[in-house]
Amino acid sequence: MDAQQMKIAAAREALSDVTSGMKLGLGTGSTASELVRLLGDALKQRALRDLRCTSTSEQTAELARSVGIEILSLAQVAPLDLAIDGADEIDDQLRLIKGRGGALLREKIVEQQARRFIVIADESKIVEKLGQGPLPVEVTPFAREVLERRFAGMGLSPELRLRDGKPRLTDEQHLILDIRVPLNQDIADVVARIRELAGVIDTGFFPTEATEAIIAGPNGIRRMRKPRRPGDLAT
Amino acid sequence: MDAQQMKIAAAREALSDVTSGMKLGLGTGSTASELVRLLGDALKQRALRDLRCTSTSEQTAELARSVGIEILSLAQVAPLDLAIDGADEIDDQLRLIKGRGGALLREKIVEQQARRFIVIADESKIVEKLGQGPLPVEVTPFAREVLERRFAGMGLSPELRLRDGKPRLTDEQHLILDIRVPLNQDIADVVARIRELAGVIDTGFFPTEATEAIIAGPNGIRRMRKPRRPGDLAT
Repeated sequence: MDAQQMKIAAAREALSDVTSGMKLGLGTGSTASELVRLLGDALKQRALRDLRCTSTSEQTAELARSVGIEILSLAQVAPLDLAIDGADEIDDQLRLIKGRGGALLREKIVEQQARRFIVIADESKIVEKLGQGPLPVEVTPFAREVLERRFAGMGLSPELRLRDGKPRLTDEQHLILDIRVPLNQDIADVVARIRELAGVIDTGFFPTEATEAIIAGPNGIRRMRKPRRPGDLAT
Repeated sequence: MDAQQMKIAAAREALSDVTSGMKLGLGTGSTASELVRLLGDALKQRALRDLRCTSTSEQTAELARSVGIEILSLAQVAPLDLAIDGADEIDDQLRLIKGRGGALLREKIVEQQARRFIVIADESKIVEKLGQGPLPVEVTPFAREVLERRFAGMGLSPELRLRDGKPRLTDEQHLILDIRVPLNQDIADVVARIRELAGVIDTGFFPTEATEAIIAGPNGIRRMRKPRRPGDLAT
């Protein structure tokens, strides 16, 4: 199986967790898009009915509508029964790095409203230590330059995310600075320090949100689980 | 002295900390506006020269320009020698509640870039315990309704800030939920809990930013100071 086939396999497995009548959060990115397409098929074939869906990005909302899925506002459907989304990196505690697709803030908002959040990915996303690639940090435009300097001073090598040569605006009208977590530092510590800086909106570090993962590899599918922490935010 | 005269007295005292050539951050609100007017006078009279100023709001930028003060971008002048701003509540550790004027995020961004941050206020702003009035929480519009519900569930009585009957947009295009910190709870704990919620951009709680305060009362002016914490963010 190639990477694309593994993404489809993970999405298909996640589909078996969706039941008619559910309130569902739809993720963003290539793997999440496979799930959206499968959901559209299942609705057409009436294998599933009465889903109430919300989206983590404008991009996914568009795709969903194109395959016949109605998208409601988060407030209309929260709290969610289930959210399903991809991730860029996953460690063995089910901590994630997300947001290389640029939707990290809406993803975190939606996934914190879900009783269950299943991450779907191919096994290339499993890492021993988070921070193999960049960590996206969403910042308010007013603070961009001073935060860039601060991050550079902290050894985090910030890079402004561009699209078509221009600063990329998120759905929430913020900018993204991609930083590098130094190999000898713990990502949770780095995130705690930068979140003290005004103008940092959020980061792509998802320490507690995922409850399960479905990982597809060449030899098949495996599931990972973790209990939600006490004082869980989902109600 | 009435409240207005005390505001002017505090601003006039703060003016004595401004010297020619300084890089200066200008606050927002009625007391900070008095300082801006005094600065404009001092520049006209050539008592001060070569200030390089940046502003914490569009509103203050407009006022500053109207009295002949050029406003530069934060990136052009950071790090700042000095920021001067008002506050809504001040406790004896120089912790603040700010943002009832709606500028909390830019204020915090600017004031974290300042080596010294002097709070100016009349003595009605001194409180034994922070949280006498509402604490402003800046939120991203996408999360507004779900955060309102969450805050209500936490007993924080959120109220959407309105202007002319419509949701008030901040300079950064966010919304403000004014919450009430229950009297038996510590504001730092409440803020730590709500900052874990995605979509919360920042709050009007300024635990560490102020280095000094100038407080005007009917019997004159007094100054309060605190040492900056170790690992201070200002460079």
